[in-house]
Amino acid sequence: MAENGMFLWNSWYAAAWAHELIDGKMVARTILEQPIVFYRGESGKVVALDDRCCHRAAPLSMGRIEGDDIRCMYHGMKFDSSGKCIQIPGQEMIPPKLGVKGYPIVERYGLIFIWMGDATAADTNLVVDYPPLDDPKWRGLPGYMHYKANWLLIVDNLSDFAHLAFVHTNTLGGSEEYAYKTKPVAVERLDDGFRVERWHMDADPPPYHRKVIANKTDKIDRRNIGRMMVPGIFLLDSMFAPAGQGAEKGVQVPGTRQYRNAQFMTPETRSSTHFFWNYLHDFDIDNPNITLSLRHSLEEGFNEDKAIIEAQQKVFDADPDYQMLAIRADAALSHFRWALGQRLAAEKTARTASGAQAAAS
Amino acid sequence: MAENGMFLWNSWYAAAWAHELIDGKMVARTILEQPIVFYRGESGKVVALDDRCCHRAAPLSMGRIEGDDIRCMYHGMKFDSSGKCIQIPGQEMIPPKLGVKGYPIVERYGLIFIWMGDATAADTNLVVDYPPLDDPKWRGLPGYMHYKANWLLIVDNLSDFAHLAFVHTNTLGGSEEYAYKTKPVAVERLDDGFRVERWHMDADPPPYHRKVIANKTDKIDRRNIGRMMVPGIFLLDSMFAPAGQGAEKGVQVPGTRQYRNAQFMTPETRSSTHFFWNYLHDFDIDNPNITLSLRHSLEEGFNEDKAIIEAQQKVFDADPDYQMLAIRADAALSHFRWALGQRLAAEKTARTASGAQAAAS
Amino acid sequence: MAENGMFLWNSWYAAAWAHELIDGKMVARTILEQPIVFYRGESGKVVALDDRCCHRAAPLSMGRIEGDDIRCMYHGMKFDSSGKCIQIPGQEMIPPKLGVKGYPIVERYGLIFIWMGDATAADTNLVVDYPPLDDPKWRGLPGYMHYKANWLLIVDNLSDFAHLAFVHTNTLGGSEEYAYKTKPVAVERLDDGFRVERWHMDADPPPYHRKVIANKTDKIDRRNIGRMMVPGIFLLDSMFAPAGQGAEKGVQVPGTRQYRNAQFMTPETRSSTHFFWNYLHDFDIDNPNITLSLRHSLEEGFNEDKAIIEAQQKVFDADPDYQMLAIRADAALSHFRWALGQRLAAEKTARTASGAQAAAS
Repeated sequence: MAENGMFLWNSWYAAAWAHELIDGKMVARTILEQPIVFYRGESGKVVALDDRCCHRAAPLSMGRIEGDDIRCMYHGMKFDSSGKCIQIPGQEMIPPKLGVKGYPIVERYGLIFIWMGDATAADTNLVVDYPPLDDPKWRGLPGYMHYKANWLLIVDNLSDFAHLAFVHTNTLGGSEEYAYKTKPVAVERLDDGFRVERWHMDADPPPYHRKVIANKTDKIDRRNIGRMMVPGIFLLDSMFAPAGQGAEKGVQVPGTRQYRNAQFMTPETRSSTHFFWNYLHDFDIDNPNITLSLRHSLEEGFNEDKAIIEAQQKVFDADPDYQMLAIRADAALSHFRWALGQRLAAEKTARTASGAQAAAS
Repeated sequence: MAENGMFLWNSWYAAAWAHELIDGKMVARTILEQPIVFYRGESGKVVALDDRCCHRAAPLSMGRIEGDDIRCMYHGMKFDSSGKCIQIPGQEMIPPKLGVKGYPIVERYGLIFIWMGDATAADTNLVVDYPPLDDPKWRGLPGYMHYKANWLLIVDNLSDFAHLAFVHTNTLGGSEEYAYKTKPVAVERLDDGFRVERWHMDADPPPYHRKVIANKTDKIDRRNIGRMMVPGIFLLDSMFAPAGQGAEKGVQVPGTRQYRNAQFMTPETRSSTHFFWNYLHDFDIDNPNITLSLRHSLEEGFNEDKAIIEAQQKVFDADPDYQMLAIRADAALSHFRWALGQRLAAEKTARTASGAQAAAS
Repeated sequence: MAENGMFLWNSWYAAAWAHELIDGKMVARTILEQPIVFYRGESGKVVALDDRCCHRAAPLSMGRIEGDDIRCMYHGMKFDSSGKCIQIPGQEMIPPKLGVKGYPIVERYGLIFIWMGDATAADTNLVVDYPPLDDPKWRGLPGYMHYKANWLLIVDNLSDFAHLAFVHTNTLGGSEEYAYKTKPVAVERLDDGFRVERWHMDADPPPYHRKVIANKTDKIDRRNIGRMMVPGIFLLDSMFAPAGQGAEKGVQVPGTRQYRNAQFMTPETRSSTHFFWNYLHDFDIDNPNITLSLRHSLEEGFNEDKAIIEAQQKVFDADPDYQMLAIRADAALSHFRWALGQRLAAEKTARTASGAQAAAS
């Protein structure tokens, strides 16, 4: 399956949590419609290879890890961590073309990131930078969900906080008022996505937050700052400050609570998505009940999203020509789709050029 | 999804039983491959709208009824009973093009009928006329079944009573003799379907009838008069008269028992069908055991049909080119397919003409 | 569905075990993507007919056997064992074209073989000849498995014994050494397949064999001789002789144990297969525990194959263009695919010629 124009190939994608690979466990996971096997070799190195033996296409994930190598357990061919075939039982000469595709990997923040496109362009500096994910003053429990929906429908969802009011009224949102009374301060259009900031002044604490604080009734000033980046990474900084004390002017109000939230939407196929997330808090970090409560609240909220987003996908499956109509609140998601489209087009141009070059040489 | 030539669009279709909409329940149901949400507004009016929010395609059936209106619970857009968008939380101006398609509805006989085509042509006089369905001297229990088969395969089934002999020997038919000894008196070819009458003289009462009568052994003269109408409505008048007393000459024989039966085949998709039915009796109408016995007997018989009809559908799914060969008994079903074909062709011509007109204006 | 170039049509295929047809049982089974009903008529004759009534496509396998005939239980049409329609209830004249396709059948070795192509070419001498299958000195229990995989993937599997080492280490193989230390003596290329012989000298008895012999530790010399024939029949003669006593030079070593194994891969569809097999032993044939142990061991081994082969099929389903790369051990399977290709091409040429002739006449 050749690279296609549907996905951005030259990009780092969250592919697995590091804890999924403990104790020699292999993970067979499809990323951008490519079947890939992930494992941690005995040296500690994480390996990602095409999950199809080059010989008869048997999944390497049904094979056996040997050191940093992997052996296909159909006819015993062995591949090193780059994908090169290094042993064929019963055959001495190994043709150099025998091997499977290997993928560049970076391990950071407890996540395994994979580079799906041209390996020579795999610059580790391009991995997303979100310090709270490995800052010990922030605490969270990493989560994973599988969506039967195109990743951009999840991006859309996160791009308009108004959905908090209706989808998450009784969980993450707290009131329908949020949709009527609040607006983004601004939608900052970036080359690789957008930044949006939204305040809800003098509001009741939303249910998920109320569960983990002592004072459950005092009004709060709520601020969300979200950044969305290609190919589908969402970083959300949330602040709940006691109301009316100037948080919106930058006052550091005592009793303020903050959250940091990272979400990674990685396409499995054009109509399904791997969703990795971690929701971090910086208070009571040694109280596991707080951490667990937030984990469960977020999961509850994400399942509300999942129900509606998978229903959208079914609409598009049934009628691929269905045309959506934009409203003003779509400014952020429209910009994101435009920015992604620019990147996809650039990648396509580069692919065509290098194809022409290859054909000419 | 534009109207296609597979279905008759300008026609009333049974879409739901009224009792399905009690207490604010929404019904999400696909009709002619269009997803539709049905609900009864607080005024009592039944509403049918495209079940996809015009904004991001979220199903309105996951939304909330407000008065006669409905609110999408993704971003809170509200639509009135015609489908017009009347509120966008956080946005004052509502562009006039925002809205979802609304469908004309008629409520009659405890059924919700929907008009799928050009709303200006939705003449309520075209709703099928079958007085027993709301005549208090007739009693029945409305039923619904879902078929994984094209609706015309059910039409075919009902078009040749000979299947009673083999499919329903021990339920609705009573003997294989029915297929050998009886024939339609005539098949009356109508513009919109056919009428067929068939007698079985001096026969044993079939099992479903025997269960609800006192004299279980005396022979009967059985008459079935069926009418089939486009798009797929079957009305069957059945009479069981004590044998040999001249029922066939019009004599009103004491002890005669009659049934009235309406069946509505509404395409869900090209390969699945909503089947609504009611089987009415005019004797012992205050004895619920009679009514229930008939309800269960018919359900048993329809399940026999369903098994064979869904098996046919699987044959066509596996081999869309499979060619059936007609026998003489297919006269009625062949005429029905011809009559429907005429209507489909006329509708296509009208669509093309209005398309050309629209393009020219 | 016309004959296509994917399958070999003029060939006998194992279609059912005779015991599947006892006591009037009908078997509905798809062979080469054709739905077929099999039954044993009252005369004892086995009948195979297209499983779709020529009238309205109802499955005949939902019908009723009458003598050697079968009656469709939709409208009662009756077909003789050749497929000719011989009765239409309520219609005296039967048009000669009414009927369903009948298939030539041979019953041998407890198997029902069907000829899928041109009936005039159905030469019973072409049925595979494997005497152990009805020789009373060999004992076995016939088995059936359904594979969600193209039949050639199973052919491939059986064509390289090296897979015994890795797939069946703890069942049928016995050691990974088998793949490193042994090689085919020769791969004999035949017009209709291949013959391969392979020895493993001075080896431990593999687990499945060890279970049924008294002396579980003495080394053995193991010989496998396999023959693979189009369209997909595998015959395997296995010998385990006490090691080092000259079995490889033709010495009849006392204490030698032998097996005979026949496997029939019959395409259900392009991506699923009927797998019939019998594994025979010639020692302790009156001890049912030996027979059962071998039956269970082989089933265990075949399930190991099935897991990996169905995983291969999923790879090809996901990426039909996936290109496999050959290694030396593929000589046998490559020759088989070549030989089958020759037969397919010849059949296509003949079909084209007869089509041209038909068009010209």
